[in-house]
Amino acid sequence: MKFLHTADWHIGKKIKGYSLLEEQLEAYEQVLHIADKHQVEAVVIAGDLYDRSVPSVEAIELFNQMVQTINLEKRWPLLAISGNHDSAIRLEAGGPWYEATQFHLNTRLAQAFKPIVLGNTQFFLLPYFEPFEARQYFEDESLKTIQTAMERVVEEMTAQFDPNYQHVLVAHFFAAGSERSDSETAVTVGGLDNVSVSLLEEHFDYVALGHLHNRHALHNETVKYSGTLLKYSLSEVNQKKGVWIVTLEDGKVTLEFEPIKPLRDVEVIEGSFSELLSPEFYEKVNRDNYLGVRLTDREVIPNVMNQLTKVYPKIIQLDRVNGRDRQSISSMSQSDLQKQDPLTLFGDFFKEMTESPLSEFQQTVLTETIQLTNKEGE
Amino acid sequence: MKFLHTADWHIGKKIKGYSLLEEQLEAYEQVLHIADKHQVEAVVIAGDLYDRSVPSVEAIELFNQMVQTINLEKRWPLLAISGNHDSAIRLEAGGPWYEATQFHLNTRLAQAFKPIVLGNTQFFLLPYFEPFEARQYFEDESLKTIQTAMERVVEEMTAQFDPNYQHVLVAHFFAAGSERSDSETAVTVGGLDNVSVSLLEEHFDYVALGHLHNRHALHNETVKYSGTLLKYSLSEVNQKKGVWIVTLEDGKVTLEFEPIKPLRDVEVIEGSFSELLSPEFYEKVNRDNYLGVRLTDREVIPNVMNQLTKVYPKIIQLDRVNGRDRQSISSMSQSDLQKQDPLTLFGDFFKEMTESPLSEFQQTVLTETIQLTNKEGE
Repeated sequence: MKFLHTADWHIGKKIKGYSLLEEQLEAYEQVLHIADKHQVEAVVIAGDLYDRSVPSVEAIELFNQMVQTINLEKRWPLLAISGNHDSAIRLEAGGPWYEATQFHLNTRLAQAFKPIVLGNTQFFLLPYFEPFEARQYFEDESLKTIQTAMERVVEEMTAQFDPNYQHVLVAHFFAAGSERSDSETAVTVGGLDNVSVSLLEEHFDYVALGHLHNRHALHNETVKYSGTLLKYSLSEVNQKKGVWIVTLEDGKVTLEFEPIKPLRDVEVIEGSFSELLSPEFYEKVNRDNYLGVRLTDREVIPNVMNQLTKVYPKIIQLDRVNGRDRQSISSMSQSDLQKQDPLTLFGDFFKEMTESPLSEFQQTVLTETIQLTNKEGE
Repeated sequence: MKFLHTADWHIGKKIKGYSLLEEQLEAYEQVLHIADKHQVEAVVIAGDLYDRSVPSVEAIELFNQMVQTINLEKRWPLLAISGNHDSAIRLEAGGPWYEATQFHLNTRLAQAFKPIVLGNTQFFLLPYFEPFEARQYFEDESLKTIQTAMERVVEEMTAQFDPNYQHVLVAHFFAAGSERSDSETAVTVGGLDNVSVSLLEEHFDYVALGHLHNRHALHNETVKYSGTLLKYSLSEVNQKKGVWIVTLEDGKVTLEFEPIKPLRDVEVIEGSFSELLSPEFYEKVNRDNYLGVRLTDREVIPNVMNQLTKVYPKIIQLDRVNGRDRQSISSMSQSDLQKQDPLTLFGDFFKEMTESPLSEFQQTVLTETIQLTNKEGE
């Protein structure tokens, strides 16, 4: 059994307002090419197909095109699950019809226990779920955490194991011991969302995970994140993105990483304001990329963002790496802050953020609003 | 060829905040029963499947259940189009897979010219479209109105006619000469959205229309609205709702109307306040229905709505059929109105609507807001 493992497509994702649909289409075409090259027997997408529960129509059009090409045109079996970013119910509309062409899109916990058999392998497709859904499904109030729920889920799955087949789990959660990136949504805090890796590797020949955007988030031979197809935040700037080609033979896993070359990369540039605006500097930068700008100057630069975006149109973050010269609100002590009146505080904050003071009209509106708020509290 | 013609399901519709999902499920079950009884060869839904372009997940669940039962369980061919209330792209996700089981869901103009052949009949499924889509599709800038566009559309369809078959058009628009109800969305004004009926009846043996909620909106033997399954506004209170059973033999149409009995009806009651609250009156009313209340009193009744909803929980409109006693703002002359200051005007209006005066805090907020607005205009 040879299949392609990808996850976290987040179709429709924007970075700081910039739509990534073009980049996503381009990355997806590379996925097709890779699957073709390796003559895979299936394509696995481990959740977060869309970026939002209610995707835009443009995102829906792109996603429809993707799955139609994979499944109807290329005729690859397509095994997918919903992730925490997806609306299970919005996704599942065509589900019962998809199965006729080996497109299996599981969005409900109840579907996870019917293995999909391809060649010599049983695939278990477990959509993202929350503990309360496990409590309802198993009618067991003791399933308080995702770990206890997963123990029950795995027990139910292994009961369906045919020992003559290999066993693959496709799932979407946080595996204990993994490292997070900035662009993922932390579902819960304090370890409640952790699933222990030993539970997974003990029973399955391979576990195709989604949720974390870094394929190196977890160090394990057979329990793997694929990571995203593209960098979705500055914290992913040094990650190499791509997909896994997974070969399973006699329960033995062989992995091959196939990189995806982004249409526009996410990159960090650093320098003084004058350096960044000098041709010697910017001619070496791919200025079509999404850029995090690290500014080394300390002084106030009026209209800094406007001036920079004339040269670098897609700035997604601007940092002052050496801090700033004048005293800023954030550096004032708590007790100093409490001594200031709200109008002064807001005015300072506004000036710090926009590098220009409040206009007369803005001051008037603010004054009236503060008076009104005070009155309401009386 | 015998088929069931329905339209304008508006799944997820609310009347004045009341969800109608329960009523819609119940009506749909009657549709199943009727289709069973008549042993139809197909079910036709002529647009407005959903009430909104982004339906709620509850609406999606109900709709999925409906089409799965009709097409996968009952195995009736299902011919449907998107209406002006539907988002074509949100609907079409599973489209290419649906066709394998004779579920044809057309959402794009381009799909309308490939006839669906069932038995001895060619069905043309024309989704709701706007003239600009026809201009794009035909690359013809002269198609300014829906009428000129439809002439071109019909020409294109008739080119696909097999003379050995009967021809049915399924469409969703306003046919010239029809009467509107309150709950429909007028797409354009001034007649630009009209399609002449003669164009339709000339070429098709039967035209299954959606859009208007009253099946009697158009008086024609072979071009028919089915109307909604349920009453969706007070203006529909006297309409009998249901579906058409259409039998086509040698191009001859036989129609049978099958009524739907609503779980909760929309009804109008009329009387004085004291009459309406007397057991002799209300015990004769089905108080679980959605009610338009026509109050005959002229005097001010404090808290009138609160008192009435204790007896009639689902009031969707309250009218004073004989007007009211005291002078109201609406009866003041334009010049009188202009003499009043905004605070007084708003206070009077508030009192008229709620039958209680502005509180001190409300007066303060209003005063400040008016001052602020005046300042902004300076």
